[in-house]
Amino acid sequence: MKQVKKYPAAITIFGAKGDLTKRKLIPALYNLFIDNHLPTAFNIICVDFLEVNQDEFRQDMLSGVNEFSRNGAAEIEKWNEFAARLFYLQGDFLKNETYGNLNEKIKSFEKEAGQTISRVFYFAVAPRFIETISDALYQHNLCNKENLDRIVVEKPFGTDLETAKKLNRFLGKRFSEKQIYRIDHYLGKEAVQNIMAFRFANYVFEPLWNKKYIDHIQISVSEQVGVGKRGGYYDSSGALRDMIQNHLLQLLCIVGMECPGAYKSEQIRDAKTKVMKSVRPYTNAEVFKNVVRGQYTAGMINDDLRPAYRQEEHVSSSSLTETFVAAKLFIDNKRWEGVPFFLRTGKSMPAQSSVVVVQFKDSPHKIFRDDIVPNRLIISIQPELEISLLFESKVPGLQMKLKPVEMDFTYKESYTETIPEAYEALLLDVLHGDATLFMRADQIEAAWKVVMPILDAWKKYPQKDLNMYKAGSCGPDAAQKLLKPYAKEWFELPFSKTVKALPDLKSVQ
Amino acid sequence: MKQVKKYPAAITIFGAKGDLTKRKLIPALYNLFIDNHLPTAFNIICVDFLEVNQDEFRQDMLSGVNEFSRNGAAEIEKWNEFAARLFYLQGDFLKNETYGNLNEKIKSFEKEAGQTISRVFYFAVAPRFIETISDALYQHNLCNKENLDRIVVEKPFGTDLETAKKLNRFLGKRFSEKQIYRIDHYLGKEAVQNIMAFRFANYVFEPLWNKKYIDHIQISVSEQVGVGKRGGYYDSSGALRDMIQNHLLQLLCIVGMECPGAYKSEQIRDAKTKVMKSVRPYTNAEVFKNVVRGQYTAGMINDDLRPAYRQEEHVSSSSLTETFVAAKLFIDNKRWEGVPFFLRTGKSMPAQSSVVVVQFKDSPHKIFRDDIVPNRLIISIQPELEISLLFESKVPGLQMKLKPVEMDFTYKESYTETIPEAYEALLLDVLHGDATLFMRADQIEAAWKVVMPILDAWKKYPQKDLNMYKAGSCGPDAAQKLLKPYAKEWFELPFSKTVKALPDLKSVQ
Repeated sequence: MKQVKKYPAAITIFGAKGDLTKRKLIPALYNLFIDNHLPTAFNIICVDFLEVNQDEFRQDMLSGVNEFSRNGAAEIEKWNEFAARLFYLQGDFLKNETYGNLNEKIKSFEKEAGQTISRVFYFAVAPRFIETISDALYQHNLCNKENLDRIVVEKPFGTDLETAKKLNRFLGKRFSEKQIYRIDHYLGKEAVQNIMAFRFANYVFEPLWNKKYIDHIQISVSEQVGVGKRGGYYDSSGALRDMIQNHLLQLLCIVGMECPGAYKSEQIRDAKTKVMKSVRPYTNAEVFKNVVRGQYTAGMINDDLRPAYRQEEHVSSSSLTETFVAAKLFIDNKRWEGVPFFLRTGKSMPAQSSVVVVQFKDSPHKIFRDDIVPNRLIISIQPELEISLLFESKVPGLQMKLKPVEMDFTYKESYTETIPEAYEALLLDVLHGDATLFMRADQIEAAWKVVMPILDAWKKYPQKDLNMYKAGSCGPDAAQKLLKPYAKEWFELPFSKTVKALPDLKSVQ
Repeated sequence: MKQVKKYPAAITIFGAKGDLTKRKLIPALYNLFIDNHLPTAFNIICVDFLEVNQDEFRQDMLSGVNEFSRNGAAEIEKWNEFAARLFYLQGDFLKNETYGNLNEKIKSFEKEAGQTISRVFYFAVAPRFIETISDALYQHNLCNKENLDRIVVEKPFGTDLETAKKLNRFLGKRFSEKQIYRIDHYLGKEAVQNIMAFRFANYVFEPLWNKKYIDHIQISVSEQVGVGKRGGYYDSSGALRDMIQNHLLQLLCIVGMECPGAYKSEQIRDAKTKVMKSVRPYTNAEVFKNVVRGQYTAGMINDDLRPAYRQEEHVSSSSLTETFVAAKLFIDNKRWEGVPFFLRTGKSMPAQSSVVVVQFKDSPHKIFRDDIVPNRLIISIQPELEISLLFESKVPGLQMKLKPVEMDFTYKESYTETIPEAYEALLLDVLHGDATLFMRADQIEAAWKVVMPILDAWKKYPQKDLNMYKAGSCGPDAAQKLLKPYAKEWFELPFSKTVKALPDLKSVQ
């Protein structure tokens, strides 16, 4: 256990009736509870504007746990214990009385606890409410203990550099930076955290982790889902803001950062911010050369016909929003000089998969006649948690014939422990006041600085080079060409072995 | 296939009635035959002094194939085809007429073939016959085509540096060096050959393969068998001559050699000889400090009570011969300065196992609180062919807690091909005239130079520090102490997980 004093905690979730609360936050809190990670005294107050009866709300949350918890259906006795501390508070985020009621609720819990408590306010709300709620918390003195009271802000954090800066300034006037937890759930993922352990606890990789030995790096996060019900938000956002600015750039930071002086929050965040600030900014012309955008058209995924993005709900039928991005970025520092980082993300791709591939260089000295495939380290984050090293080995037989094989490490075969959800890890960190895995103001701004030239170029030339790709394909051809001459293709994703060939669309219409 | 012209081959085996011929050579030749690796025209003439009828001999060889071939029982049709070219020739190695008869037999095959043939003479005989047979082959002009006629000499090659030199000179006067194939079957093992592929076809290991990153190396070859029926030979030889001088030092060369300029016979043998010559020679005092010898006493292995070495057949009841050796050697060159190579071999150990372990150094820079286990590369040669890398990984859970795990590559899971026997690979190389995996005269002498100071010190002080160990144990305690401060123990062998605790001897007597 982390050696942190556990204060009684009042956890407030704004956006009680949203998907995030039901699918992620309550199941995560329930799992922390049953694993004895929550403080003995805690209180969860879920706020939203709908009129909902307390029992109905709890029943709804229970169904969320039953459906989405990694531990399966709740044990009813345990759930009842948990539910007794789970409250619904009806209230409009825009109205003062909501915060008055909330204050009363927290105060009474505080009185009951008989000691100082920690207050956590989770903003599971649309971005437009962040400032209002923050200001109200500030005005009502609800979140004023620098060491114990915290707010948790979900992405998107701003829509560009200016709005992010403005929001940082706004929050900074009301809370100290150490009270602000900007969440990127990707950083809570087990396999993502393990990249840091892998890099910095194993002395054999560090000497190889630089331009001398690494040819290029691929970071690919593909989603099988389309835009679903999020068309309204997504159409004004796009893949660059929705995925690259946060998840993929964070992966880039973890793969590319220098070793921090210690495994401590500020040192790690310093190291990550530093590498992010070294990403080379592009001119307009460079953007169109190095960044590919795409949008999906109708296609098949696993026997389902998927609509084109422009036919999705709440999406403009002439939308120019990108649902796919592939980018070639450079980190201009001593370690990574000239080593491209290829980032790719897209919706309506053949499967859900997140993978980091470190492609090592070819040997300068070849003694075998065979074509040697240079070593490759593959860190798979999902669907499987797995690390493997591709290396050349002699094929059994009477000749010295080589073929690449893999050395594998899989979580499935190595551990009996079940893997906590990212939100469990992150919520526990918030309760413990450990901000290591959260975005600091300067990190967020540095990430926006990386994507701004791309956003600007696309804004200036909205029609230029928007590549269409069929749902169920791996994205537009331009994304393959981007890799040249470093690789012929994006390295096979874990799923691609099992994906069926795409049938001709005519035959299913 | 190797691109070598296949000449018709007359293969003569001296020592037709020995174990090697029945268990290894004939099964290997038969497997090469069924896999179409033998030349279309070939002839196998097996010579020994016993009176044996042709059919009986063939039947005996068939039973050898049926029992010992990796492919199981022979297909009778194929066997008959093979057996039609397999002949027994009765003859005393010491008598001229034997070679006259052999000459006739080969000549008639040559006539049949109607073209130049290649002649291979395999010495599967006791060492005392090597010079006699060699001289007879020379006198009868049986082996005089430098590019096509070859002799294959089994170990032991001499009993010390002087006798090895003498034998090299003797053979060198009768054959050119390129006709002499000194066999060490260990070098034909699939996993041993793969070490070279692993080291030189994978660019990621070479930068780590030196004193900067490697703490020490362990090479361990343990045998479960005792001395068996070989007591007569073994008691005047011992483990140092029987295993260290050849197999273990060859493994040391392959692990420690510089990268050859090309994968070519002479360049590889040059590189191996060079590293062998850099092994530090010890004084008498250094021998007793750095080399441990042991002899087994009675003990249990898998519920069998095994006799003490001194109770074995043909072994002196006061024998001082070592059945176990552990040695700490240094290679005095730039790459390996100060890195100990620990070698260990013994009989009557818990199981048969050959393993090379490369122990990497600890990181100079530690950012995690946990005790970090430094990386370890484990190359298992037998019983399983396997390469694995031990590395630190985050244990799934809500804290950054580290534990060592393994990344594995196993032949079993990676290949459907069956693995050829070492003798198949080596016999095919002889037929092809590829001497890469065979010992050159200077290699043999260099290996003897490494062990001579040890032999000399033990000869001078025959009783000193001969450690007794129980059959079924992992050798004497002194072998563990030798590792200090580099390691606490010899790294767990693949078998050690399943070995039963040694019962108290009293309880089974």
